[in-house]
Amino acid sequence: MAILEPTVRAGETWALPRDWTREAALALAYWRSPLLESWVADRGDDSSRDVVGTYFLRPAQLGPGSHVGNAGYMVRPDAWGQGVASAIRDHSIARARERRFTAIQFNFVLSTNDRAIALWTRKGFRVIGRSPGAYMHARLGPVDSLIMHRPA
Amino acid sequence: MAILEPTVRAGETWALPRDWTREAALALAYWRSPLLESWVADRGDDSSRDVVGTYFLRPAQLGPGSHVGNAGYMVRPDAWGQGVASAIRDHSIARARERRFTAIQFNFVLSTNDRAIALWTRKGFRVIGRSPGAYMHARLGPVDSLIMHRPA
Repeated sequence: MAILEPTVRAGETWALPRDWTREAALALAYWRSPLLESWVADRGDDSSRDVVGTYFLRPAQLGPGSHVGNAGYMVRPDAWGQGVASAIRDHSIARARERRFTAIQFNFVLSTNDRAIALWTRKGFRVIGRSPGAYMHARLGPVDSLIMHRPA
Repeated sequence: MAILEPTVRAGETWALPRDWTREAALALAYWRSPLLESWVADRGDDSSRDVVGTYFLRPAQLGPGSHVGNAGYMVRPDAWGQGVASAIRDHSIARARERRFTAIQFNFVLSTNDRAIALWTRKGFRVIGRSPGAYMHARLGPVDSLIMHRPA
């Protein structure tokens, strides 16, 4: 919740209710669905772990669509700018290969999220689609979301 | 299951396991999730109902993405070519407006599914994205999937 809460409250990156609660998140089995695996990035040692980021990886679709991976990432806002996002990005790409996914696809990258777009573009993701006005940005109103993709 | 079973067994349109069972479908609460509403198209009268098609409608995303609708459609193969798909398409568009969705988006229309693409294009849906090789078609191997969209 230390990661999820500030992220959803801001209403600028994720399509999750801004007033989401721990209970609602757990009820939906969000980030802990049996269909996905989740990872955390921590700092410190066994006596003092500080979780600063997380991502999930899952098949983008079932059955004949399950060879493509889908992932979602969050970094605790007070740890931004310290390389956490790059670290979990690279881990997820390696993990997707290990799981024999042939590609990774993101379904909902906000067109206003320059930080994220740069993060993905640097590793060869490209935009394969754009959904007009798909997100009601807390400050900017309706903004487009992008579908991004790269071979794994 | 009379609709779902032949559809998934064919492996040519839906990203669902070809060997999917009734039990697996129910375990995933597929088509009956609390987040979606489902409709059926039937023929006949109260003494003899024949369900020939179904669709679901749900918010495409949560929270700031919940103003866009997402839907999925299936017609029992032995009822193809009889206007069922057009009927549930039109019902779903009217229903999306009623629910004040500002747009409808499909995330996974196979590029080989000419029947579906024509059905949507005739009602103003347009392609806003293409995912390369996202579907392992039972006869054709890897084929692209399309993201299609229209204002509601």
